[in-house]
Amino acid sequence: MPDSSEYAAAGVDIDAADRAKELIKRLAQTTFRPGVLSEVGLFGALFQVSGYREPVLVSSVDGVGTKLKIAFALNRHHTVGIDLVNHCVNDILTLGAEPLFFLDYVAMGKLIPEQAESIVSGLAAACRAVGCALIGGETAEMPGLYAPGEYDLAGFIVGAVERDRIIDGKAIQAGDSIVGLPSSGLHTNGYSLVRRVFQIGHEAALRPFDRLRTTQAQDAARWDRFYPELGRTLGEELLEPHRCYLPALKPLLHLIKGMAHITGGGLIGNPPRTLPRGLAAHFRAGTWPVPSIFTLIQKAGKIPQGEMYRVFNMGVGMALYCAPEHLGQIQAALPEAKVVGEVVPQWGVERAIIG
Amino acid sequence: MPDSSEYAAAGVDIDAADRAKELIKRLAQTTFRPGVLSEVGLFGALFQVSGYREPVLVSSVDGVGTKLKIAFALNRHHTVGIDLVNHCVNDILTLGAEPLFFLDYVAMGKLIPEQAESIVSGLAAACRAVGCALIGGETAEMPGLYAPGEYDLAGFIVGAVERDRIIDGKAIQAGDSIVGLPSSGLHTNGYSLVRRVFQIGHEAALRPFDRLRTTQAQDAARWDRFYPELGRTLGEELLEPHRCYLPALKPLLHLIKGMAHITGGGLIGNPPRTLPRGLAAHFRAGTWPVPSIFTLIQKAGKIPQGEMYRVFNMGVGMALYCAPEHLGQIQAALPEAKVVGEVVPQWGVERAIIG
Repeated sequence: MPDSSEYAAAGVDIDAADRAKELIKRLAQTTFRPGVLSEVGLFGALFQVSGYREPVLVSSVDGVGTKLKIAFALNRHHTVGIDLVNHCVNDILTLGAEPLFFLDYVAMGKLIPEQAESIVSGLAAACRAVGCALIGGETAEMPGLYAPGEYDLAGFIVGAVERDRIIDGKAIQAGDSIVGLPSSGLHTNGYSLVRRVFQIGHEAALRPFDRLRTTQAQDAARWDRFYPELGRTLGEELLEPHRCYLPALKPLLHLIKGMAHITGGGLIGNPPRTLPRGLAAHFRAGTWPVPSIFTLIQKAGKIPQGEMYRVFNMGVGMALYCAPEHLGQIQAALPEAKVVGEVVPQWGVERAIIG
Repeated sequence: MPDSSEYAAAGVDIDAADRAKELIKRLAQTTFRPGVLSEVGLFGALFQVSGYREPVLVSSVDGVGTKLKIAFALNRHHTVGIDLVNHCVNDILTLGAEPLFFLDYVAMGKLIPEQAESIVSGLAAACRAVGCALIGGETAEMPGLYAPGEYDLAGFIVGAVERDRIIDGKAIQAGDSIVGLPSSGLHTNGYSLVRRVFQIGHEAALRPFDRLRTTQAQDAARWDRFYPELGRTLGEELLEPHRCYLPALKPLLHLIKGMAHITGGGLIGNPPRTLPRGLAAHFRAGTWPVPSIFTLIQKAGKIPQGEMYRVFNMGVGMALYCAPEHLGQIQAALPEAKVVGEVVPQWGVERAIIG
């Protein structure tokens, strides 16, 4: 084998890549399920869909956003993998789909096989929990694009739903109820704002805020600060994994007319994505508990109430639309679910109203 | 609508995100094909596979690597989108699959809608060329993770192949021929080494090479240098898009026993991925033309010959394994294809030999 000294000197370590591949392969194999026809390592992954009369594939792609920055700061890389899978699973669940397989993209400034393994162990754990096969991935070393020790992470999911059971929101009408399911925290959105609010992130290249730049030691102290109202440190609270709604909602899909996964754009931006024209989502503030982390962020950053709803999930991680006559059945199965509002005719330009 | 001044101050511009979504949506719609059941903008994309007796899904995920750095330097963002799609299409082609749909992930330090549009216009053009639907994507703004003006790009493809027509390499035997198809240049691998060889990339955080750091003006001069042996500037040569082999190989798939897409790991690392145990690929140097760019890189960097084969495709972008009796038919259909070697029993540890 020719040595790879020149390439290594250029910042790319082919041997580290081989070692990472081996570690990741083992983790991926723990997720394999019926349908997987290939081993990891081919140029493509093979999957045969079975058990459906008329399957429609439902796919989605996501990242974790700047929540990664907190993983870097705390040097904990397992939970962002969980975040990514759960985010993707929830996205396709909104259309009624169950996950089949997942592929990941990890790009690092310097490939550290053990760091990649930690990320992928989170991906694999979350995949196993929902019967999804982690059948492929790309681990790229990109010196000069990412700072040392940093990385980005993206995930791609494919699931399936019977064609006549697609949940597309078309049946939603004025008078339908909106049911909110609790989030486990920020999930994966709003982290750039949070870092600004707590003045954390000395490495951020945000020119207007140079005066806010902090040292690494100051950052660590801020992440490690214990908040009685959270019952834990800020860093622990903010790394809490994105909740997966599949186990709770799978038995109830036939009662649900539409779903909105509350991600980037918050409680204002997401609910309209599922609503037919001419309808708006009217949330009644006070009908669900807003977790302390949001109150803390709002107070620390003096953020207007309206903006909080536009950036964060505010405690509602998934919103369901259903006929009022099905509320009893849904709430009996999910005691944590709250009726948080109703569908109303759209009068103005707003399609999501908090009042 | 609440204003998003706080979030914008934190480096995330929701309005820019909305504008980018609109631009991207229009481009994506130009790629739609039968099977696509959803509009862009839902939480997941819907696709129904039809026209197959027993379809097996073939998926792959890829990035463009540090070829992106050249796109940044030349401020040309269309071709990296083409690179990404063609890379993915070639990957699943090695198993005999044709593309169905594609999703992209673009992460930027600062979301510049027009830059995102330029990237996605390349994705869409390459998708249209092979009848692949660009049905979803994520455009993330991640201040502090990417330098201003920089981004990363990943793509995810799903294709299909009839179960009894999967090309898995199992039929390959000693004595089979290896046919090489010309690459269009470096494709998407080896760019970190190239940047080091030409001492370009002042922004690279490669500690041992601080002394090689150059100014932006020096970089520009190096990319813009005209090389008579290339017939163009170095930058133009290096941004040449990754070639797509689907149109050339689609009519010949029934004659092919296995394929290796020559990507990261070069001509040494990739051919064994398709070979059954106990076999090696023996390439005969001199049987195919090595494009001038490789000679130029090797000379400029004084790179050992063995390492060149381990990093670059060296002019062979795709290697096919076939029975010698089918060579005539393949070469009649593809005059550019060269017999570049043969499959031999594996004697030592090496599974790809250049001799």
